[in-house]
Amino acid sequence: MSEQAAVLFANDAFYLAFTTRDPDAMEDVWARSIPVTCIHPGWNVVTGREGVMESWRAILANPESPQVTCRQATAHVLGDVAYVVCFETIEKNHLVATNVFMREDGAWRMVHHQAGITAQGPSESDDGTPDRMQ
Amino acid sequence: MSEQAAVLFANDAFYLAFTTRDPDAMEDVWARSIPVTCIHPGWNVVTGREGVMESWRAILANPESPQVTCRQATAHVLGDVAYVVCFETIEKNHLVATNVFMREDGAWRMVHHQAGITAQGPSESDDGTPDRMQ
Repeated sequence: MSEQAAVLFANDAFYLAFTTRDPDAMEDVWARSIPVTCIHPGWNVVTGREGVMESWRAILANPESPQVTCRQATAHVLGDVAYVVCFETIEKNHLVATNVFMREDGAWRMVHHQAGITAQGPSESDDGTPDRMQ
Repeated sequence: MSEQAAVLFANDAFYLAFTTRDPDAMEDVWARSIPVTCIHPGWNVVTGREGVMESWRAILANPESPQVTCRQATAHVLGDVAYVVCFETIEKNHLVATNVFMREDGAWRMVHHQAGITAQGPSESDDGTPDRMQ
């Protein structure tokens, strides 16, 4: 598997944990060796693993949290760090996200996530099926 | 200068180029060796140096573009890559930004920028003066 594919696989794991509301899987996605950061849409910055995990547990436990689909993810590998830019489709709304990963114990783990509103969604050529989710 | 300070210095250079509407300085901020990416608030993703520079030239040339102040920047150094999370104050509105840098030719250069709306701005303890701009 190429490094880009490995990073996109880690990115998929994040959205799969999100979609399946699986807090254990979400725990596995995020790095443990450094303080992580997360900016949920419209929230303030959450810093540190404990706070970030608490924020995800609240989101995943909320039955009214919307379903998210990741589309048009592109991975940019910069040695032992990588970032993914992708769209998040939530019902009929679109967000755009930056997901930063680092290599930790041989795996790509998330260190930072920011999602925010975008004026446009995925390009018209997108047929509506998720690009990277199985 | 610590690596964190060096990254924050590069982050300052970005906001200084933005504030002074200096396209040449903005050119210097961004990496040349890899395709860069940029998500302006409410825009779609801009990919590649040419497109990103074109977007900045349009923003910097527009006399109606608002003034931006960077506040509460924190740098996270991950070897030869780093990311900064900071607030951008634009008039009375607040955005939150992720700025990714990589080491290129001995300098920290920007490879990715995302700014988006945040519900809250900098913490109350912020005295209103820019943290990192001189």
